[in-house]
Amino acid sequence: MSDKKYVYFFAANKAEGKAEMKNLLGGKGANLAEMCNLGVPVPPGFTISTEVCTAYYENNRQYPEGLEEEVKAALAKVEEEQGKKFGDPSNPLLFSVRSGARVSMPGMMDTVLNLGINEEITEGLAKLSGNPRFAWDSFRRFVQMYGDVVLDLKPVNKEDEDPFEVIIEKKKKDRGVELDTDLTTEDLKELVNEFKAAIKEKTGKDFPEDPMEQLWGAVGAVFGSWMNDRAIRYRQLNEIPSEWGTAVNVQSMVFGNMGDDCATGVAFTRDPATGKKIFYGEYLVNAQGEDVVAGIRTPQPINSSTKTDPSQVTLEELMPVPYKELVEIYKKLEHHYKDMQDIEFTIQQGKLYMLQTRNGKRTAAAAVRIAVDMVEEGLIDKNTAVMRVAPEQLDQLLHPMFDPKAEKNVVATGLPASPGAATGRIVFHAEDAEEWAAKGEDVILVRIETSPEDIGGMHVAKGILTQRGGMTSHAAVVARGMGTCCVAGCGDLEISYQDKTMKVGDKVFKEGDWISLDGSTGQVIEGKVPTVDPELSGHFGTLMQWADDIRRLNVRTNADTPHDATVARNFGAEGIGLCRTEHMFFEGDRIKAVREMILADDEAGRRTALEKLLPYQREDFYGIFKAMSGLPVTIRTLDPPLHEFLPHEDENQQEMAEEMGVSLEEVKAKVEALHEFNPMLGHRGCRLGITYPEITEMQARAIMEAACDLVKEGVEVYPEIMIPLVGTKAELKNQKAVVVATAEKVIEEKGVQVDYKVGTMIEVPRAALTANEIAEEAEFFSFGTNDLTQMTFGYSRDDAGVFLKEYIARGILENDPFQSLDQSGVGQLVQMGVEKGRQTKKDLKVGICGEHGGDPKSVVFCHQTGLNYVSCSPYRVPIARLAAAQAQIQFPG
Amino acid sequence: MSDKKYVYFFAANKAEGKAEMKNLLGGKGANLAEMCNLGVPVPPGFTISTEVCTAYYENNRQYPEGLEEEVKAALAKVEEEQGKKFGDPSNPLLFSVRSGARVSMPGMMDTVLNLGINEEITEGLAKLSGNPRFAWDSFRRFVQMYGDVVLDLKPVNKEDEDPFEVIIEKKKKDRGVELDTDLTTEDLKELVNEFKAAIKEKTGKDFPEDPMEQLWGAVGAVFGSWMNDRAIRYRQLNEIPSEWGTAVNVQSMVFGNMGDDCATGVAFTRDPATGKKIFYGEYLVNAQGEDVVAGIRTPQPINSSTKTDPSQVTLEELMPVPYKELVEIYKKLEHHYKDMQDIEFTIQQGKLYMLQTRNGKRTAAAAVRIAVDMVEEGLIDKNTAVMRVAPEQLDQLLHPMFDPKAEKNVVATGLPASPGAATGRIVFHAEDAEEWAAKGEDVILVRIETSPEDIGGMHVAKGILTQRGGMTSHAAVVARGMGTCCVAGCGDLEISYQDKTMKVGDKVFKEGDWISLDGSTGQVIEGKVPTVDPELSGHFGTLMQWADDIRRLNVRTNADTPHDATVARNFGAEGIGLCRTEHMFFEGDRIKAVREMILADDEAGRRTALEKLLPYQREDFYGIFKAMSGLPVTIRTLDPPLHEFLPHEDENQQEMAEEMGVSLEEVKAKVEALHEFNPMLGHRGCRLGITYPEITEMQARAIMEAACDLVKEGVEVYPEIMIPLVGTKAELKNQKAVVVATAEKVIEEKGVQVDYKVGTMIEVPRAALTANEIAEEAEFFSFGTNDLTQMTFGYSRDDAGVFLKEYIARGILENDPFQSLDQSGVGQLVQMGVEKGRQTKKDLKVGICGEHGGDPKSVVFCHQTGLNYVSCSPYRVPIARLAAAQAQIQFPG
Repeated sequence: MSDKKYVYFFAANKAEGKAEMKNLLGGKGANLAEMCNLGVPVPPGFTISTEVCTAYYENNRQYPEGLEEEVKAALAKVEEEQGKKFGDPSNPLLFSVRSGARVSMPGMMDTVLNLGINEEITEGLAKLSGNPRFAWDSFRRFVQMYGDVVLDLKPVNKEDEDPFEVIIEKKKKDRGVELDTDLTTEDLKELVNEFKAAIKEKTGKDFPEDPMEQLWGAVGAVFGSWMNDRAIRYRQLNEIPSEWGTAVNVQSMVFGNMGDDCATGVAFTRDPATGKKIFYGEYLVNAQGEDVVAGIRTPQPINSSTKTDPSQVTLEELMPVPYKELVEIYKKLEHHYKDMQDIEFTIQQGKLYMLQTRNGKRTAAAAVRIAVDMVEEGLIDKNTAVMRVAPEQLDQLLHPMFDPKAEKNVVATGLPASPGAATGRIVFHAEDAEEWAAKGEDVILVRIETSPEDIGGMHVAKGILTQRGGMTSHAAVVARGMGTCCVAGCGDLEISYQDKTMKVGDKVFKEGDWISLDGSTGQVIEGKVPTVDPELSGHFGTLMQWADDIRRLNVRTNADTPHDATVARNFGAEGIGLCRTEHMFFEGDRIKAVREMILADDEAGRRTALEKLLPYQREDFYGIFKAMSGLPVTIRTLDPPLHEFLPHEDENQQEMAEEMGVSLEEVKAKVEALHEFNPMLGHRGCRLGITYPEITEMQARAIMEAACDLVKEGVEVYPEIMIPLVGTKAELKNQKAVVVATAEKVIEEKGVQVDYKVGTMIEVPRAALTANEIAEEAEFFSFGTNDLTQMTFGYSRDDAGVFLKEYIARGILENDPFQSLDQSGVGQLVQMGVEKGRQTKKDLKVGICGEHGGDPKSVVFCHQTGLNYVSCSPYRVPIARLAAAQAQIQFPG
Repeated sequence: MSDKKYVYFFAANKAEGKAEMKNLLGGKGANLAEMCNLGVPVPPGFTISTEVCTAYYENNRQYPEGLEEEVKAALAKVEEEQGKKFGDPSNPLLFSVRSGARVSMPGMMDTVLNLGINEEITEGLAKLSGNPRFAWDSFRRFVQMYGDVVLDLKPVNKEDEDPFEVIIEKKKKDRGVELDTDLTTEDLKELVNEFKAAIKEKTGKDFPEDPMEQLWGAVGAVFGSWMNDRAIRYRQLNEIPSEWGTAVNVQSMVFGNMGDDCATGVAFTRDPATGKKIFYGEYLVNAQGEDVVAGIRTPQPINSSTKTDPSQVTLEELMPVPYKELVEIYKKLEHHYKDMQDIEFTIQQGKLYMLQTRNGKRTAAAAVRIAVDMVEEGLIDKNTAVMRVAPEQLDQLLHPMFDPKAEKNVVATGLPASPGAATGRIVFHAEDAEEWAAKGEDVILVRIETSPEDIGGMHVAKGILTQRGGMTSHAAVVARGMGTCCVAGCGDLEISYQDKTMKVGDKVFKEGDWISLDGSTGQVIEGKVPTVDPELSGHFGTLMQWADDIRRLNVRTNADTPHDATVARNFGAEGIGLCRTEHMFFEGDRIKAVREMILADDEAGRRTALEKLLPYQREDFYGIFKAMSGLPVTIRTLDPPLHEFLPHEDENQQEMAEEMGVSLEEVKAKVEALHEFNPMLGHRGCRLGITYPEITEMQARAIMEAACDLVKEGVEVYPEIMIPLVGTKAELKNQKAVVVATAEKVIEEKGVQVDYKVGTMIEVPRAALTANEIAEEAEFFSFGTNDLTQMTFGYSRDDAGVFLKEYIARGILENDPFQSLDQSGVGQLVQMGVEKGRQTKKDLKVGICGEHGGDPKSVVFCHQTGLNYVSCSPYRVPIARLAAAQAQIQFPG
């Protein structure tokens, strides 16, 4: 026997593990041990650690030495605890075998219940329980699950039917019954034999009757499931390293299916959708746990707080004693864990057992409310509250909702399973959702029920609609986790996968038809519905205030219009970090002047055209400065190559020629002359401004005239003029000279003082490498991490889609570096740029204005690197604020 | 008076300066002082230091305080030395005023002779010398030069006539004479008055009669000339910093124009074209120095060694006494400076004066021969000899010469002014040369004579042909410096700028006609002439052997064919640093197979096509390995994006469709699908190999099969397989796995052992930044500095031409970073890559295979950075070898 401990025993007040041992025991195993330590009634069992999983995969799917002995020893302790014997027909001990990784991967992993059973043991169980139907139902369930999971009879293509379900359906039809529960003991016996025959036929082997063989088979299946396709997919989507492995929990069975004094259920200690402090859950009488989660029968509410229909019978009403005990336990658990818990329980013949507790998944709104409430309840402090909400989640709260005043043709109402508003075209299969979404379509995934195989399609869908399943069904849990709007259990629907139709009454929706879902009300609406900006709750405001008090990093926004600036300011933006001026060039008559400039043969011609642009640009800047009064506004001078302003289609070129009064040939010649092989690396950014200083001059003039005019009106303006694509100090020096000369002239003309700065983007690798030199000319730096990522990796963002997807799928890259900053490569340049820049100017203001400014992980990096601010799109401003606070809490340095 | 010393006096044995003070006194001033120290007869004078020039430009064109007093003091000392007085008609002292920068800038700067003269002084001079014609000729020359240079009457557009020349021409016509020397004293007096009138007319001011005013005017003009266009241009071409400034040398005039016992000349202490140890020079009787250099009269040889025509009278014959003295002096100077000298002298009434000495410009062949000879003469050591030859110069020796067996229609013969062979199309103006060359045309610049304004055109011309001027004329000196082939003084030509024609006898050549020049024989040849590889001299071999003994850095070559490999090996390449495999894909039938692969729908289809390519590739590698037997050969796997292998013109697409038996639409669809916005940053390099591992597999197989076959034949092969465009360790790991698996399979199949390595290009910035990680997988690194430069600067090499030229012209960049490695930016990444790579693998072999591998400055950088080798194109291998030796001498570390 090796020195290493692989197996951890647990029973009430006798656990070898504890909550802190999640990495080793997985979340489920650690929490089972912790509940035992708290004296909560937990059926005894043992956990095989995640190290066994890792060793198993490292060692060519072989178990480590000594494991078998440890399992036997732990099993003996469980037998002693339970006073039963595994494999003993006279007093049998059955087990559930479940996976349990460090972080919850709902429905991703395989589970086997009622293990340790065969015909002889079933008979013994029947005798012992006095309930042969229960015994045979348990055996039937075991053979089916073991056949599916361990013996791999579950069809890979989920549209194919499960062979066992086929047999059951046939049996029900033969017997003329509708529900499984209507089948007799005899029927169940027959089913078992038919199942076994099917297994023999498909695998060529007899069903294993030996309980020990069953146990090792199930353990192997759990470890095996760690590497199945849907688990790998889930880990990719959720960035879980495959090295973490899963633990296996072997736990004594308790039976919710022994009769009407039995039940099984799941509950949340607070409402996972709203965060409201109510005890919230569902249960099924005479059932096993899988029945609730799978959404096959529609469960009942555990108490009146979520009762929506008088016909419903709550657990509180039906079994008041165990319910009361459950309430005490949930309070104890929430108080102990200081977080909202997601619990599973089973009541066997009136006795309550806890099968799981874990921190519950929740919507963003719930996360915010629970965090704020718990501070007010004195359970947690503000820092903890701020850490409790995943910044990325806030996105759900910030995006538009349906306009309450809009006409809505509600065709059905289901459960409000995951909040939000979604409009899209109907698809009926996850694969179709992925295909359509890849083409840029907004889709609503409509399913009878969802299953883990649908994960990819659920991820890309704007909303999810199911016909069956409750608030804790697969669809609901997963959708809330993803922040995707979901309406579940909408029984009025009739879905035909075959015809690709969904009927509601006599209305038929076909694939591709538009519908809208309101995940906050459960409404299913015909067609498209207009949306409005959300109103943010008081809880949200409180939490963000705490975040603002904590964070060191400023948060600005990328905004090119007064409207965007206003939205962002309402979301808490502390200035503009990037105002792109080129977008303004496309509007209305402006493009004509821009094209006139491009066609001009000489500087004089260009100046004439630029004269026409000046008033437009001045007006743009006036509006933006006003919207951001009192806050800094960073404006980038013209960045894209000039050919972007010319039409490329023959027809449009003809149009342009006519409009400009030149020949088509002239237009074509100019387009040809400006054509570039790699425009990304071509004549753009400050390279343009150096070749055509008159463009920079016009822009500087427009900025400064607008600023001066506003100062005269008493508005505070802080323009920061930013030169793009600088790679050498000399470039910045050149453009700065143009800007300063113009600015000083305007200030003199207008006779007011404006406090302006001239700085540069750091977006070319060379700029970061020589930041000490560039800082001699720069009054601020702003990292343009989009371009910096393009050049540091050598990836054209427009072209990289082809291989980036593949790179991520193959694990060559962990993330899309355009979404989350590549800290080890691009990040080095950012760090270097900051350090070198501040070597030259100790107090150099440094920000980031790539899209990474709104990515929480990248925000933490920016905090650690000592940046002054991040700048991101308006809707991501709160996300960045929260991420910045979390960064400060984690890295207070 | 300030503490600073600005003015340095010199006179025989009494100089305040010395040769080492070049930075302060300029080359000319320092050497005048040094000659004085050596007791060589030098007319006394003084040097105003370069610090005055720098101060002058820093201080808004104002002289520093105290300068005037120092000049007056120095002037007084010269007066005392000469026993004459500046401005004294009874015993006048005249001066020459010349520029003199740290490094020689021939013909770039302005000069004024005979300064300190007016009508009264002229009369005094006439009386004193008894030679009124000389006195008035001196005054005439002064007014003309001062008018041109100081008063700026010289036309900017050199096609416009000099106003003074117009007056002279008219005078000569009026007098019915042909030569200046035929004009009488009276004529010269009239000319002076007409010149003065012209000056009054053009400038509105009287000609300055005050000698002191003349002196300060001339000094100002010299400083002013430092910033004139042609000086700026010259500095750019020769990478001379403008901060260096120029000194001004004010030197007592000696007169070569006092009569037939007077002369002036220039000479080289060895033949500057061949390096042969002969005293080599030209002189003119009764002339001033400018007359020789300007090429107006054709000078005579100083001795019989270069006498080509019995009618010539040598200086040795004409004035044996001063000639003998000159010989003694040149020997003394060469021995003192330990280098070939370029000297200027004037003989005034039989007395010899030295006006200048400097290290002489020379051809590459001469540089090599002189260096080797001087070692053999015991003058210098081998390290000094190796340092004496500019590596870049070797280019002249290595490029093809005219095939001696080719039929050549020689139409004229001029002076063999600068060796080499050139074929090109005739242009008559420097601007045309630049324009045509920009369009990719090879041009021969044909001029009556060249002048400093022509420098741009001379730089781009393949060859230069002049009608007038000797071996030391502007055209000859500049062409030798540039290593451009030049035939000078070809008097048989009749050139008409007007008609853009060149007549030779009754043959007329027009602009655009093809001619060929042989700069080593002086032949002008009609049409194009085929070239052959040059034979390298024994001196060359000796020098290169010394270089090889010294250098630490290995030199490999970039070669894609057995022929290139063989050429490079003959030039001393020690292996192949880069063999690009994609060029092989275009030849013959291969492109068809490549296209078949691209059109294939699946891996099986691609494999079928790749099967067809395999034997071709194997054959390629077989030949290359064989040519490089015993040396390492680095082969890069496929690098360019696949669309480069598809036709883009309709017509060619149609052709391809027919050839491949597919529809035109299919071809077009594939072209469209593969189109990229920025191919440089797209799906290429290892990204292709990762998507289509079968391509890498085929290439690895071809390499290893060829290697194994050769090993069986007893040939030593060292394949190094190199993965391009790696940015992450995972990419290299992926491709290395494919290569190693294939290689091991081939080795097993063939049953022989081959020692192969797998490494990577470091050409993406991220690769350099994470080189420590990448080195875990790499067995060697090779810096691809072309791509690394593109990405570090964000410059697409295909597009950057538009702004790079401007950047260099405006001083935003000092050099084209694609030609000479940007050490402060890209170089940091190289350094980082080396350091980080060797952190992981102490002995990691690191090379460079960008074009920078053949750039001498970059080679020095590579040496300093600790690279193991550089790799460059075959013809640059000797250049790199020499540069590597010089690096070792300079930085022996």
